[in-house]
Amino acid sequence: MDWQLSFVGLGLNGIQSLSNEALHVLEEADKIYIESYTNFLEPNLRKDLISQFKKPVKLLLREDLEQREDAFLSLCRSVRIALLVPGDPFIATTHVALRLSAIRKDIRVHVVHAPSILSVAPAITGLSAYRFGRTATVAFQRSKYCYDILSANLQISAHTLLLLDIDVASGRFLDINTAIDQLAGLENEYEEDVFTEKLLLFGLSRLGTRNAEVRIGSPAHISKLDWKTVGPPQSLIVCSELQAYEEESIQVLWGKQISR
Amino acid sequence: MDWQLSFVGLGLNGIQSLSNEALHVLEEADKIYIESYTNFLEPNLRKDLISQFKKPVKLLLREDLEQREDAFLSLCRSVRIALLVPGDPFIATTHVALRLSAIRKDIRVHVVHAPSILSVAPAITGLSAYRFGRTATVAFQRSKYCYDILSANLQISAHTLLLLDIDVASGRFLDINTAIDQLAGLENEYEEDVFTEKLLLFGLSRLGTRNAEVRIGSPAHISKLDWKTVGPPQSLIVCSELQAYEEESIQVLWGKQISR
Repeated sequence: MDWQLSFVGLGLNGIQSLSNEALHVLEEADKIYIESYTNFLEPNLRKDLISQFKKPVKLLLREDLEQREDAFLSLCRSVRIALLVPGDPFIATTHVALRLSAIRKDIRVHVVHAPSILSVAPAITGLSAYRFGRTATVAFQRSKYCYDILSANLQISAHTLLLLDIDVASGRFLDINTAIDQLAGLENEYEEDVFTEKLLLFGLSRLGTRNAEVRIGSPAHISKLDWKTVGPPQSLIVCSELQAYEEESIQVLWGKQISR
Repeated sequence: MDWQLSFVGLGLNGIQSLSNEALHVLEEADKIYIESYTNFLEPNLRKDLISQFKKPVKLLLREDLEQREDAFLSLCRSVRIALLVPGDPFIATTHVALRLSAIRKDIRVHVVHAPSILSVAPAITGLSAYRFGRTATVAFQRSKYCYDILSANLQISAHTLLLLDIDVASGRFLDINTAIDQLAGLENEYEEDVFTEKLLLFGLSRLGTRNAEVRIGSPAHISKLDWKTVGPPQSLIVCSELQAYEEESIQVLWGKQISR
């Protein structure tokens, strides 16, 4: 295939998620980079890639793109670069921006898709993927944005996936307890009857891996678990009213009878 | 791993999309089934799987599940079955139903995730994945359902992914021209100012494969292409108002200047 920069999705489960197509691209590449600032990496990923592909594997840092993007893209003119990114490429805006810069410089861009939390979260929980509305991030810094998205989704009977912020450089992540506190605080302040104790939530961590943690219940119930000790990445699903087949799925998968 | 029935996502690109994890499961399985009634299969898939894995590969038909589900699930007690399904497993409700039946019979169920149109469609088009609302299917039989979902999404400034129906048994698929006619017909009838010529659409076929076709423009512009000859599966995206970074993406990727 004729490409100079290939964005290769790592999915949610590290090297296990790599597809045939991804392996082929990694073999063809001269150099492999791992985007290392939007998500925490598995400890052995770089070492495993070096031993499997016998070629240089480097970490791509935030400053490589923010301050030295031109240098990185110039490199793509002389060697073929496979850039591993978490999940499915181009879901995170930072990868979209790099893609656009590359295309503007006439670098031939290629993509290998991989599982994304956008389909895995519905699949795991038993909720209908078709019934999800807009997705929002709950940021470290409290903002009404996620509350407004939740409100809009509930208005049209849509579930909401809330992704919780992480800060790879400092090793911090927003845990579910803190996110629930933040949403409850927004409810106290704005009183729009959006984030209430009546809601059914899923608390999710490390989805798609063997260490995934899934809890279902009211905000108070989900908050009983100390999510700080569970580890990132974490997310929440706020359910809108459930269809009968979703209730059935939840009952079979999670043993939870939904009272109507 | 300890499982009796593994749902293995085929992604959107056949055997090329299979992950390391999927290959491992297919090796461990005693028998491989391919779910063959929710999507058209690549012509060589079964033959390729037989030659790669040297074990029986069967097609799972609709009547195998609708009339002989018990027999299929009993089989999982004596041999390990890997069931290949298109996209990411458990997005289609038919696979969710089988999963629930299996769990009710104490069959140990396992899943291998794969790329889904839910993340690939935003990634390919340059639209923000976070701004998509509820997904709907446009069925052969005209129904107001998809029009109502579109209306609800537009109300909260969300894009809409519309999946177009297929009927594998008869080889029919709903093409984009017919779907647009259907939506325009609903607009004529209900006059809720939902599906109008002002909208920006993406017409998409065979997304995630090398033969993908992407068109962007007004309903009339998209309809200029004869989608019947392009082949399935097809889908539409109806854009809500675009954010600046989405306009930029669309301009770079598709050369289309958006007038405001």
